[in-house]
Amino acid sequence: MEKEEEYTFLKKIKTPEDLKNIKDLNKLCDEIRKKIVSVVSKNGGHLASNLGVVELSIALHKVFSASDDKIIWDVGHQCYAHKILTGRFDEIDGIRTKGGISGFPNKTESKYDAFTTGHSSTSISSALGLAYSNALNNKNAYTVAVIGDGALTGGLAYEGLNNAGKFKKNFIVVLNDNKMSISHNVGAISQYLTYIRIRPSYMKMKGKMEFWLNKIPFLGKGMIKVLRKMKSVFKGILYNTTIFEDMGFLYYGPVDGHDLNKLIEVFKRVKELNRPVLVHIVTTKGKGYKFAEKNPKQFHGVSKFNAQTGDTYPINKSFSNVFGEEICKIAQKNKKVCAITAAMKSGTGLTDFSKNYKNRFFDVGIAEEHAVTFAGGLAEGGMIPVVAVYSAFLQRAYDQIIHDVAVQNVKVVFAIDRAGFTGNDGENHQGLFDVAFLNSIPKMKIFAPCFFDELRFMLNEAIFEYNGFSAIRYPRGGEMYKPNYFKYSGTDFDIIGNEESDILIVTYGRTFSNVCLAYEQIRDKFEMDMCIFKLNVIKPLNKEAIKRALKYKYVFVFEEVYKSGGIGEVFGEKLIQIEFKGKFFHIGIDEKFIGCANVETQIKEFSLDSNAVSEKILMETKSDL
Amino acid sequence: MEKEEEYTFLKKIKTPEDLKNIKDLNKLCDEIRKKIVSVVSKNGGHLASNLGVVELSIALHKVFSASDDKIIWDVGHQCYAHKILTGRFDEIDGIRTKGGISGFPNKTESKYDAFTTGHSSTSISSALGLAYSNALNNKNAYTVAVIGDGALTGGLAYEGLNNAGKFKKNFIVVLNDNKMSISHNVGAISQYLTYIRIRPSYMKMKGKMEFWLNKIPFLGKGMIKVLRKMKSVFKGILYNTTIFEDMGFLYYGPVDGHDLNKLIEVFKRVKELNRPVLVHIVTTKGKGYKFAEKNPKQFHGVSKFNAQTGDTYPINKSFSNVFGEEICKIAQKNKKVCAITAAMKSGTGLTDFSKNYKNRFFDVGIAEEHAVTFAGGLAEGGMIPVVAVYSAFLQRAYDQIIHDVAVQNVKVVFAIDRAGFTGNDGENHQGLFDVAFLNSIPKMKIFAPCFFDELRFMLNEAIFEYNGFSAIRYPRGGEMYKPNYFKYSGTDFDIIGNEESDILIVTYGRTFSNVCLAYEQIRDKFEMDMCIFKLNVIKPLNKEAIKRALKYKYVFVFEEVYKSGGIGEVFGEKLIQIEFKGKFFHIGIDEKFIGCANVETQIKEFSLDSNAVSEKILMETKSDL
Repeated sequence: MEKEEEYTFLKKIKTPEDLKNIKDLNKLCDEIRKKIVSVVSKNGGHLASNLGVVELSIALHKVFSASDDKIIWDVGHQCYAHKILTGRFDEIDGIRTKGGISGFPNKTESKYDAFTTGHSSTSISSALGLAYSNALNNKNAYTVAVIGDGALTGGLAYEGLNNAGKFKKNFIVVLNDNKMSISHNVGAISQYLTYIRIRPSYMKMKGKMEFWLNKIPFLGKGMIKVLRKMKSVFKGILYNTTIFEDMGFLYYGPVDGHDLNKLIEVFKRVKELNRPVLVHIVTTKGKGYKFAEKNPKQFHGVSKFNAQTGDTYPINKSFSNVFGEEICKIAQKNKKVCAITAAMKSGTGLTDFSKNYKNRFFDVGIAEEHAVTFAGGLAEGGMIPVVAVYSAFLQRAYDQIIHDVAVQNVKVVFAIDRAGFTGNDGENHQGLFDVAFLNSIPKMKIFAPCFFDELRFMLNEAIFEYNGFSAIRYPRGGEMYKPNYFKYSGTDFDIIGNEESDILIVTYGRTFSNVCLAYEQIRDKFEMDMCIFKLNVIKPLNKEAIKRALKYKYVFVFEEVYKSGGIGEVFGEKLIQIEFKGKFFHIGIDEKFIGCANVETQIKEFSLDSNAVSEKILMETKSDL
Repeated sequence: MEKEEEYTFLKKIKTPEDLKNIKDLNKLCDEIRKKIVSVVSKNGGHLASNLGVVELSIALHKVFSASDDKIIWDVGHQCYAHKILTGRFDEIDGIRTKGGISGFPNKTESKYDAFTTGHSSTSISSALGLAYSNALNNKNAYTVAVIGDGALTGGLAYEGLNNAGKFKKNFIVVLNDNKMSISHNVGAISQYLTYIRIRPSYMKMKGKMEFWLNKIPFLGKGMIKVLRKMKSVFKGILYNTTIFEDMGFLYYGPVDGHDLNKLIEVFKRVKELNRPVLVHIVTTKGKGYKFAEKNPKQFHGVSKFNAQTGDTYPINKSFSNVFGEEICKIAQKNKKVCAITAAMKSGTGLTDFSKNYKNRFFDVGIAEEHAVTFAGGLAEGGMIPVVAVYSAFLQRAYDQIIHDVAVQNVKVVFAIDRAGFTGNDGENHQGLFDVAFLNSIPKMKIFAPCFFDELRFMLNEAIFEYNGFSAIRYPRGGEMYKPNYFKYSGTDFDIIGNEESDILIVTYGRTFSNVCLAYEQIRDKFEMDMCIFKLNVIKPLNKEAIKRALKYKYVFVFEEVYKSGGIGEVFGEKLIQIEFKGKFFHIGIDEKFIGCANVETQIKEFSLDSNAVSEKILMETKSDL
């Protein structure tokens, strides 16, 4: 535990206004970095990106008034310094824990968090909405969107730029270029930023001229106009054009994102411009913590680690690892198999695949829509694309699944990682929608493994046997309890326990483990028997499973997704259509968004742990038995 | 009816290969235009866009071999000439009718249709997938994506360009710039294209130099390299840079898209380049049909019209009109109300709003994701944004509704037009998913008006009374049968008929009209009484409605959306949870995509017309009564 006294400067900051009392802002940076390393090493979280924007956060709060002005952090995992500077130093130790502050900006947590974020590439659009609101209400306030180079590969960012470029007032986009997003950036934009980065001299000249001209009142602004007109002639020599200028922004950069004074100076200047400006800053991910600087990818999103040595603790085998292993084996056997990720190579377990099958590996950047439509094209051309994606991010490609996969009726496999509760990242990272939205798509087949061997089997099934498009959804982390009395059959559903009982439990995926524990508790303690249907395929629902469920006096469906649109709803409706006469219970997630806590706590909170499951069963059935 | 003999040239074309036998291709253009005007005047469809790409279609089929090479038409409504040239001249008269060919490219219809399209901005991504497939399979074939300037405002197009820019082989994007998409283009990209268009001289010089140099073997290619390096120095003078070149494409244009010989020459040349090329062509929407040239917006998507005079037939008042009127009244009363459309100003009924409340009207281009996230920002800033959007296109912003509206918990109203069957545009334009995907979103309120006055009331309710985000979904076209015994209460549901009956029909939206007709048929013919619950709010389901439904012997849910994820599923599950003992029937759309036919035919096909409804009720209940 670090000593309180070590944070001499930080302790003085209760609001961003207190920044004016700090003489040595660079020392403040050191303290913030120290605090961030300390907290993340204990709680886990995003490290490298947060260390990269310490100076930026201070500069923004120094120049803008974040209670009136609005700063929107794209994705938002880089908000720790911002939180520390906006009255949450005392709470930062509890970040990302149950009851603690969020690891992402959260409107309900602080007036300084302008917008709750979590997904990529949204900031320009939402900031533009805020900016127009101010304009329409004649309110003088600034709006700043901070977006990384990774997030700039997402189409929504481009839609935002395209619309913002014609805004007639001050609107500031800070492009935080850290030369990589979560995985290394891909595509032309990434190359383009490199190209801009290597010619700072032009920018310097242009910037100097413009600001200098700007200081001469009246004449200055006229001169700038003239200069801009000259641009079409002398472009490339005096006044270099960027893609951002083509889109209506004044481009300013690149600026060293760790030069605090320079940043403050630049922001002060761009405040004065009555038009959209893009400030391109270059930062180093992991800045100031040598282990993270050296290996920023490893320190992007981390579990707790040793702050002194940079050592991470061994992580148990996960579904992502198993997927990664199996898809390599499959690619070896079948040369048509391709893997696609949207900037989550490591997270989805595709690192080995990317090395071994380079030609068939596609990291498309943070562009889930393109990932899916591209997969549709690959499949149409005869390849077998596997799109590896987190459940929460596949939401972004709902229409592309419909339009470019389902309507085409091509064989694309969606390997959906982080399905169900995902823990501490909070409301925007839970995988609770996929069952509902995939269920709505005609002919989509959905597999739901509970154990590693099932994931392996289903992946082979989807790729080699099934003649259509399908999704395999599996949870974050590893296997839970695996009962020795259960053996996976490879069919649509498995039956465990006593079919002659009055009680039927229907479940799938990770929840099966807790249901088994509950089953054992009840069996051992009350000598009460029951039957479990473990659904291996949740869409289409196996007709035989429905038929067999009819005779039970009690049917419970337990599932780790929203009840609305969940399998319980489908199962219930199928049962009512065949005149089920018993009692039916559906246990899942109610209509609310889930804040941060670890997965275990979330499972408990929504009564899907073994105790809650057995209690529910006993409560509903005991009186009759 | 035009005479067969008038199509001398067209009759000779059974496959695109037959183009080589046609001496005078310009006469062929005339015939194609004549045929298109004739067919669309009878069947309705997309006119202006199809007349604009006649030369382009011929040039592509002349240069490429569309059975091996793949041409992907973005959106796809401009495919009529392509269809005529690829063996479907005899079928074009039946286009967009039940059993006829589709008004969009359709894989199942012809080997020349490389990909089934309908939504905007997908072509570059899917074409890139096909191109990589060819590359991975060592197949020598070309891939061409044809995309309009309108579709280029969609983020997916940018994601596609960003990824395609680094493709190492031939890949051709044809930018068909007709200086407007459906409504006039908006945003920076549109201005930018104007800018490029006015400087053809540079392009000409550059093109000439490059092709000339290319003709000198070996030396040529080296010289081009040198030239490209010089670019960073002399850029803007010798070698102009475009946004597309920044993204890794060779830019070629602008080319007159009605100069057939020029187009053929250009395509022949770009075939030889082993890299991504963007060919920018400029066309005139409605070309060759004076009424459409003069008023291309009116002739974008049309119902049948008089081909001689260009007169369209009066269209009955639609829900879109009513929405447009009411939102103007509301905007007059409340200065916070804004309207947002994604390039569908006229289609959604917002033309008057755009004139009267210019400051509060936002046409964001074909960028549904931005529309929704931007709305979230506006709402956060205190405005009340109404997003007017077709059901099928709102699918594209599913994650943005979750992330930037629902999680923020801000007041955004979604005015969802074209909900349910939409008729002749086929599988990608039906509004059959919105109930399912909106149902999955926590706290979303969904209104379902059946009549104009209900839409007016609900719009006011959503804007002035309800304190959260909501959706109002209404069908294409106008009101259907409105029984005089029904009066809308303004509450969550209305009860019609005899509550003491054994039979309950639950329905909402347009289907209510047919249910009433069925109710009358049965009542008059069989003296059989029944009860109808008309749901005005379909989410959350009114608890009292569920409770009251419990006592019925028969409950039928009729709805015009997919059953999977529909209200029937929710209603059924709620009933089973309170131990409903009767019979339950759910009638809606099964798991399939819906081809073209008019709305009436589609309603019949899925047994939602009054006869089918009454038959179903009688069949299931008669034996007992």
